[in-house]
Amino acid sequence: MSLSLPAAVKIIEVGPRDGLQNEPQTIPANVKIELVDRLSQAGFVNVEAASFVSPKWVPQMATSTDVMAGITRRPGTIYSALVPNMKGFEGALAAGVDEVVIFAAASEAFSQRNINCSIAESVERFRDVARAAKENNMRLRGALSCAFGCPYQGEVTADSVADVTMQLRDLGCDEIDIADTIGVATPRHVQTIMQRAASVFPIDCLSGHFHDTYGQALANIYASLEVGITIYHASVAGLGGCPYAKGATGNVATEDVLYLMQGLGIETGIDLDAVVDAGQFISAQLGRKPASRAGNAIAAKGERCQIS
Amino acid sequence: MSLSLPAAVKIIEVGPRDGLQNEPQTIPANVKIELVDRLSQAGFVNVEAASFVSPKWVPQMATSTDVMAGITRRPGTIYSALVPNMKGFEGALAAGVDEVVIFAAASEAFSQRNINCSIAESVERFRDVARAAKENNMRLRGALSCAFGCPYQGEVTADSVADVTMQLRDLGCDEIDIADTIGVATPRHVQTIMQRAASVFPIDCLSGHFHDTYGQALANIYASLEVGITIYHASVAGLGGCPYAKGATGNVATEDVLYLMQGLGIETGIDLDAVVDAGQFISAQLGRKPASRAGNAIAAKGERCQIS
Repeated sequence: MSLSLPAAVKIIEVGPRDGLQNEPQTIPANVKIELVDRLSQAGFVNVEAASFVSPKWVPQMATSTDVMAGITRRPGTIYSALVPNMKGFEGALAAGVDEVVIFAAASEAFSQRNINCSIAESVERFRDVARAAKENNMRLRGALSCAFGCPYQGEVTADSVADVTMQLRDLGCDEIDIADTIGVATPRHVQTIMQRAASVFPIDCLSGHFHDTYGQALANIYASLEVGITIYHASVAGLGGCPYAKGATGNVATEDVLYLMQGLGIETGIDLDAVVDAGQFISAQLGRKPASRAGNAIAAKGERCQIS
Repeated sequence: MSLSLPAAVKIIEVGPRDGLQNEPQTIPANVKIELVDRLSQAGFVNVEAASFVSPKWVPQMATSTDVMAGITRRPGTIYSALVPNMKGFEGALAAGVDEVVIFAAASEAFSQRNINCSIAESVERFRDVARAAKENNMRLRGALSCAFGCPYQGEVTADSVADVTMQLRDLGCDEIDIADTIGVATPRHVQTIMQRAASVFPIDCLSGHFHDTYGQALANIYASLEVGITIYHASVAGLGGCPYAKGATGNVATEDVLYLMQGLGIETGIDLDAVVDAGQFISAQLGRKPASRAGNAIAAKGERCQIS
């Protein structure tokens, strides 16, 4: 006996922003432009390409305007950017971003330690950005961090997740990401939280953002498919480490997610081989091997063994 | 909605044999002895500790008699050894092995390329070993390789898996391992094959042996739990690479499997922290970092973030 799975999913490639932001090296704009273009050409309908935050906070993202100006826009691909405030929004608007990403934590302790304010205050601060996004016909996405556990407070309840999901919904978010920021979740916990979030926001507009810190990301994605989640975030070559456990793995690798979907017969519209190549490209720039098991196996010519 | 999961599972630690056999370095007997003892003390009820094959084939296993003589037997732990023939069986018997492991492939091409004979011939060659194991009150385990795909022939059918499972059953195997030797499986394929094997052999005596070559092992284990498989193989620190894709990952790491089971509330009787320590110990001997994401995250003091 098996639960039915979705026939198709949307994969949001977050490597160029969420991934590279957490890499120690600073990558020049021309390399980021090539990465974004390789990814859109591979078939992604949504690429998180930039972040309009202060370069004092995140020096890796200082090139966001140049990146947005330099890429070749692929029709049908949405280019997203993180914006922390109205100043960031103005930058994103000027750069022609399609979707702005705002954020909140499901953990009070994380909100205080990460952005120095309560969850409620952080949501309130985004009210102007949310309104401006709507007025400018931009998509609005809300990223909800620490939905499965917090590095500071430990446990995060399903009530907290539902509560902050409703606050992001009420700001007008078109899509909300339920994120396992520190990669601690396991499958049944994931199903519980996803089902709870889906009780307050349309399930087709909820996404799963999983980190592979404890090796659980693919199992968690499979468990999310079983409860009907159809949007997933992934980072090519597993770009981005875990800032809360030095040397540990961060974002789940896109190649591993695509291999899973291919094996399950779930449509993504994305060319896995092109993503493997993009992962090799950016990893060479960073001077290391991709943190993707499927990517490395395929690159090692293990692809002749692929059985769906 | 969710499928029910088992309340408890048996984890067979295969690192000292299946893992180390596939590492390029040769490890001295005293280090293997310490590894096996650390693992039995961590609570494993079954450790694959040795292989009585010709040292000409597998030089890493030349120390098997010394390892079996040197370990401290923990009451309640079964120590297993791979035996290819009667000469190996005599060695295993003399060394006091509790369980002998015989093997066959679900793929004709793999059987021919790996052991130079057909599947039927390979099973026939084990008839004397199987009889001798029973006469000496030893457990008999059958390892069925390439059950989900073959590096030479590609696809392997569920019919082939069921057929060879029956042949191993008819030799008197107490337990049969359904192995993804090259790590190509994905969850629904795993459920199909496991359910087919369970149609010809008791499901409680079937085990899942997964490789993480394409990053799918944990998802495949979760899918196997959903169809009632209660025995899993794992290798501490992910010991053992993939001989069919250079630089790729092999056996699923025990730490990752234990973290999954802990999160799902499934009893294993094993102390995860002790296994993380054992993984650090053997990896230091090999001069590298453990290939376990949970192990590395926990060792990096990420364990304060563990949420079940």
